[in-house]
Amino acid sequence: MALHHVVVVGAGFGGLEFTRAMAGAPVRINLIDRRNHHLFQPLLYQVATTSLATSEIAWPVRHLLRNRKDVTTLLGSVTGVDPSGKRVLLAGGEALAYDTLVLATGARHAYFGHDEWEPFAPGLKTLEDATTIRRRILLAFERAERESDPDKRRALMTLVIIGGGPTGVELAGTIAELARDTLDGEFRNIDTTAARVVLIEAGDRVLSNFRPKLSAYAKDALEKIGVEVELGRAVSECDEEGVVFGGERLNAGTIIWAAGVAASPAAEWLGAAADRVGRIMVEPDLTVPGQPDIFAIGDTVHVERKEGGLVPGVAPAAKQQGWHVAGTVKARLAGDQAARPFVYKSDGDLATIGKRAAVIDFGWISLTGRLAWWIWGIAHIYFLIGLRNRLAVSLSWLWIYVSGQRSARLITQGDDEDS
Amino acid sequence: MALHHVVVVGAGFGGLEFTRAMAGAPVRINLIDRRNHHLFQPLLYQVATTSLATSEIAWPVRHLLRNRKDVTTLLGSVTGVDPSGKRVLLAGGEALAYDTLVLATGARHAYFGHDEWEPFAPGLKTLEDATTIRRRILLAFERAERESDPDKRRALMTLVIIGGGPTGVELAGTIAELARDTLDGEFRNIDTTAARVVLIEAGDRVLSNFRPKLSAYAKDALEKIGVEVELGRAVSECDEEGVVFGGERLNAGTIIWAAGVAASPAAEWLGAAADRVGRIMVEPDLTVPGQPDIFAIGDTVHVERKEGGLVPGVAPAAKQQGWHVAGTVKARLAGDQAARPFVYKSDGDLATIGKRAAVIDFGWISLTGRLAWWIWGIAHIYFLIGLRNRLAVSLSWLWIYVSGQRSARLITQGDDEDS
Repeated sequence: MALHHVVVVGAGFGGLEFTRAMAGAPVRINLIDRRNHHLFQPLLYQVATTSLATSEIAWPVRHLLRNRKDVTTLLGSVTGVDPSGKRVLLAGGEALAYDTLVLATGARHAYFGHDEWEPFAPGLKTLEDATTIRRRILLAFERAERESDPDKRRALMTLVIIGGGPTGVELAGTIAELARDTLDGEFRNIDTTAARVVLIEAGDRVLSNFRPKLSAYAKDALEKIGVEVELGRAVSECDEEGVVFGGERLNAGTIIWAAGVAASPAAEWLGAAADRVGRIMVEPDLTVPGQPDIFAIGDTVHVERKEGGLVPGVAPAAKQQGWHVAGTVKARLAGDQAARPFVYKSDGDLATIGKRAAVIDFGWISLTGRLAWWIWGIAHIYFLIGLRNRLAVSLSWLWIYVSGQRSARLITQGDDEDS
Repeated sequence: MALHHVVVVGAGFGGLEFTRAMAGAPVRINLIDRRNHHLFQPLLYQVATTSLATSEIAWPVRHLLRNRKDVTTLLGSVTGVDPSGKRVLLAGGEALAYDTLVLATGARHAYFGHDEWEPFAPGLKTLEDATTIRRRILLAFERAERESDPDKRRALMTLVIIGGGPTGVELAGTIAELARDTLDGEFRNIDTTAARVVLIEAGDRVLSNFRPKLSAYAKDALEKIGVEVELGRAVSECDEEGVVFGGERLNAGTIIWAAGVAASPAAEWLGAAADRVGRIMVEPDLTVPGQPDIFAIGDTVHVERKEGGLVPGVAPAAKQQGWHVAGTVKARLAGDQAARPFVYKSDGDLATIGKRAAVIDFGWISLTGRLAWWIWGIAHIYFLIGLRNRLAVSLSWLWIYVSGQRSARLITQGDDEDS
């Protein structure tokens, strides 16, 4: 009898964890991703801000699974699912049959009706996004150095981050340090320490998922390192010149979008019910309604917690879901068809502010300051895959910590306008 | 009185060495480059073959010169020179006046009448070139894994390198090891150790600048690690399917151009006499004929050696020229207007073949094998700039040496055809 065939779409935290948890099960697995690498997204902002090299936070998926002879890794784009034929449709016209399908297709930054803002305010989800943002930040300073008009120069030295969640807070803090520490003294016509870093959040506090006193601490810590935090004023316009927020125009040479994400098109593939950002409304056991052989996990699903609120779009949640679904699939193969509802256990929420402070909300306790920063750093080193990357990232961070110097200050892959 | 103003175009080995050697001289310097980084080109092939990260071999120019308050680094494209007005012309319409001009504008790979080959056979001069080649190599294996037609699969697993100079030899050796060691066991449908790596050289030996017995050793060493070396057969055709060489067609999924370079357009800017690849025929003191205030150095100049032959287009030659011109400029400022002819001293020629062998030709002695490899490695670590990069590259190499694993196996920045 042919082995039960599992197709996994997406090699992010959810898809990879599912695949790992299936080790030893009587199945064969095809893992498909559009990219050849698994990306450690929690540190992506450090690539965007010149602290880490791209290869320090990304690993070839097939290398991670090289010893799993039951797993075939495929580079390919999924364009749809045919549930009645039990097939995944691939770009180029191929199709792949499955017995069980796991969709772990993630999310993408989204502009919610303002897609025309994207060219001016890139978001941060892929390595290319990170090198694009890195290029724009560095180019703005290079252009300011050559600009003689003081108004234009001031605009070039104004960097706006839209969105006060963890990504926005981490970007703003690191960019402020980049301008104040790393670049200081290297230009002759501008003073990089006078750069304006403006974090705009439409809500009334940053890090709204954390408890209010941590939000207040984070705002304070950001302001101490020179970030201007603008709360309660939504951005209504984004263009080549800058942004309009709270009715006021601010000219800015660099704008970064950290204000929202939308789910992958997995819900559309299936015609499944979705929430307002496109996440599939899955059953408690993470199956797609009416499709018991199709599971969906991670940032592309909408799961409510019994204590209220949603399971957040973070790596630990996706990993827990991957692990949970693997348990269900293995139980089914062993003859146990009972539905197993998923329960999310929060490991705590973390965010850093520059290289001195962080906030951690464990629920039962919260931490701020240097101790939180060290816990944050050690946790992230721990969750990196492979000794080599742990050594490399540790070296990079040690270097930044001691010297203030960042090693990946490269302007590459220019837009046409830059060449 | 205003300080003597020196404009340097190009922050490669020549321009940077000149600028460094001018420390303390009574001048102000503007150093202009199209890129924000100095690139350690001798290791660029290691980025193309996934061994090193881009940021391990490139440094922001302004960071390297941060303590030189007499130097202003500018990111900009030079489009021409106005010698009568003593001005450098920049893209965007600006101009920069100079008292002394140093052109260190390098070279670019060239197809000598076959520019139509470029899309199929990318060359290797910039970081983007390296990530393009890296992407193509890795994508060819990914596509082979999904290809069911055996002929197409064989073509995808055929990699052709055109040109048997040091770059071609180093690329071929590293790609062979990538296929045989690094990727081995990670695919399910193909055997990467069966990949064909074909090095095509029109001349009758590889490394033609080295003595013949070293060429023979290199060919032998390449063949031992699985490279097919094809000598005496020129490539007459390059297209989407592969190459034609010596009248025979070879279908190949990846083609890399390492067969030739052409100088920058500096000779055209000046209307100066140039050799067949566009290098300025400079005076013995490295000034441009008829332009005593304009020096040209590095890969963009043609300089004959008194023992015969040309000064080669290598980093040590460019650095020696930069150092020499700085001496001339300083002597002139001190009132000594005598012409100082440049004399090239060869430090020896080096090339590696994979991670076990190398050849070194010191002129008076030659070395091969493991000892040569270690000397090559230590010399390259030594010439890298900054302790941090030395540590990072040492770690990367140690890892490859011990585990065979390469850390920068990323497919990024896809061509449109790939997305």
